[in-house]
Amino acid sequence: MVVDDAEIFEAHEGGKLSVALSSPLDTQRALSIAYTPGVAQVSRAIATDVTLAARYTWANRLVAVVSDGSAVLGLGDIGPAASLPVMEGKSALFKAFGGLDSIPIVLATKDPDEIVETLIRLRPTFGAVNLEDISAPRCFEIEQRVIEALDCPVMHDDQHGTAIVVLAALFGAAKVLDRDMHTLKVVISGAGAAGIACANILLASGITDITVLDSKGIVATGREDLNPFKADLATRTNPRGRSGGMAEALAGADVFMGVSAGLVPEELIATMAPGGIVFAMSNPDPEIHPDVARKYAAVVATGRSDFPNQINNVLAFPGVFRGALDVGARRITEKMKMAAAQAIFSVVGDDLAVDHIVPSALDPRVGPAVAAAVAAASED
Amino acid sequence: MVVDDAEIFEAHEGGKLSVALSSPLDTQRALSIAYTPGVAQVSRAIATDVTLAARYTWANRLVAVVSDGSAVLGLGDIGPAASLPVMEGKSALFKAFGGLDSIPIVLATKDPDEIVETLIRLRPTFGAVNLEDISAPRCFEIEQRVIEALDCPVMHDDQHGTAIVVLAALFGAAKVLDRDMHTLKVVISGAGAAGIACANILLASGITDITVLDSKGIVATGREDLNPFKADLATRTNPRGRSGGMAEALAGADVFMGVSAGLVPEELIATMAPGGIVFAMSNPDPEIHPDVARKYAAVVATGRSDFPNQINNVLAFPGVFRGALDVGARRITEKMKMAAAQAIFSVVGDDLAVDHIVPSALDPRVGPAVAAAVAAASED
Repeated sequence: MVVDDAEIFEAHEGGKLSVALSSPLDTQRALSIAYTPGVAQVSRAIATDVTLAARYTWANRLVAVVSDGSAVLGLGDIGPAASLPVMEGKSALFKAFGGLDSIPIVLATKDPDEIVETLIRLRPTFGAVNLEDISAPRCFEIEQRVIEALDCPVMHDDQHGTAIVVLAALFGAAKVLDRDMHTLKVVISGAGAAGIACANILLASGITDITVLDSKGIVATGREDLNPFKADLATRTNPRGRSGGMAEALAGADVFMGVSAGLVPEELIATMAPGGIVFAMSNPDPEIHPDVARKYAAVVATGRSDFPNQINNVLAFPGVFRGALDVGARRITEKMKMAAAQAIFSVVGDDLAVDHIVPSALDPRVGPAVAAAVAAASED
Repeated sequence: MVVDDAEIFEAHEGGKLSVALSSPLDTQRALSIAYTPGVAQVSRAIATDVTLAARYTWANRLVAVVSDGSAVLGLGDIGPAASLPVMEGKSALFKAFGGLDSIPIVLATKDPDEIVETLIRLRPTFGAVNLEDISAPRCFEIEQRVIEALDCPVMHDDQHGTAIVVLAALFGAAKVLDRDMHTLKVVISGAGAAGIACANILLASGITDITVLDSKGIVATGREDLNPFKADLATRTNPRGRSGGMAEALAGADVFMGVSAGLVPEELIATMAPGGIVFAMSNPDPEIHPDVARKYAAVVATGRSDFPNQINNVLAFPGVFRGALDVGARRITEKMKMAAAQAIFSVVGDDLAVDHIVPSALDPRVGPAVAAAVAAASED
């Protein structure tokens, strides 16, 4: 599929979103109901009982897609204005796959205090927050503080959306290869937002042998150059206490997961255990070309739509937020994320194959299945 | 027209807005264009030249309808959540009558510093700010500071939207009565956001004899209880140096404009000069019933849709913002506001009559006429 630049820019002209009215305002009667004097009745009712805002405004089911533009796609810190096309795209996906309204909020500040404070002030405007493209390690603190400050679902999608879909894909890969997932030796290349979240969800799902790599090598206790989040991760991963780089990590590994922009040489993939699994998720250029990876690995996935097994966050986030909002959940818990991964995997069903370990990003069954599973897993 | 509560609440269920996609996301190709990998091209282009955000995102033409809920309709300080139905209605009107997308932003703070600061942080998210239902005198400072802080059109509609439509209506009333507008003796009841803005636009249009009343009486120099905005107004109005209350103000007046919730007794309207003009704009209860006012005045207008001559802000704000955004104006100037009033008046045309001094709020010609006039009056 070749898409030329002209077509891309034309499609983005004027933005990708618009606001629509739930009913037309073309009669005096409609105006009296939607605006003055009718609206005063509704405002008065909410002033008396603020819980009625959930019923008589759009805010309760509105997702704010919030970014400071500090870590956009593979482009890095390009700022809020340049991040907006991505946030509009995200809002479009929320609508198309989750049936949820959402608005992009791009912030002209990267200060964590100011971001948290701004969202607290905006709180009555929306019903949930999808944090997006905020750089690590700032994203960990910001997400945690926003979760604590707001009484509504909050999720940094670069972390948890990715982790949920990766786990779903690993369920599929292990099943199709008839492997016991818990015994897999997993290498994660990248210790940023996605890498750390993937490690966490894999640990939570019972995988014990996980090795994480950052740009300096294996994340291991004893390294002096680790930020607090990597240092913490070092204590919970790398159980065989290895040190070194990608070569040391990949030798004999069952699974390679790439969530950084760094390439991995073919000769290192060749040192993995036979019949392995490669998720080369960097976009637009996978860590290793899937055709090359397939020479060694039994299952290969990428983040791209033009190869089999596309690992795409859109399989998770619309349904996760939809499920959380459907039941009025105040938190997106680990249990809900695990349920989302299970639901994505379950949609594959009988179509499971080495080149079909996850559903298509366009599969209309995924959003509702994830939403139902997340809603059921909520403990609110 | 009777609308019962059940019908009103049913119409507001789930809110009055939704987000729509400019094109469907139902193929892999559409997904690749709107989201990854295609969107990266657009973000990269904006990162290189931030002016491209105006072309390739919705923000440049997006109006933020911003309120702290401190002065909502006739309801007062009911807070941000309860104000949201009004802001959604406003956004719906922007779409229906100005063809503009807009999003409600309701703030959980009433602190002017925090409101200004929050809008500065949100700046890349939108292209214009409609301040709404913010209490006086805070609204004057907040509007001024937001105008100074942001390089985009900003208008507090309760002030200037009202003033524009009042001026348009006065054009119509003076014309139909064949009066020289500049010689009219005008009394404005109410010295809040709308009252002060009305006084200012009337002064700017060349009317010299204006008397403003607040709840304590005539706003006059020498009063010790005036806030700085009223004290300033006292130096520019009340040229005959009167003191006292409504009785003293109305005796011999040509025009009564009510923009407060206070009633005016019939016996005082009876003391106005014969053949006068009464704009009783308080909602839902006019300062005097129009049937009673018509016993004394030649032209009577209200804010209500169920009497002739409805003075409604919707005649102004959609076209004002549309015109300003159409030409990329960075300010909404006094000249643009005057042009808007003239354009509203011009739409009445040959239909001008004592019971038709302004166009219907539903007249589809008004928005485009106002937008064109405002755009032409822009000096940017």
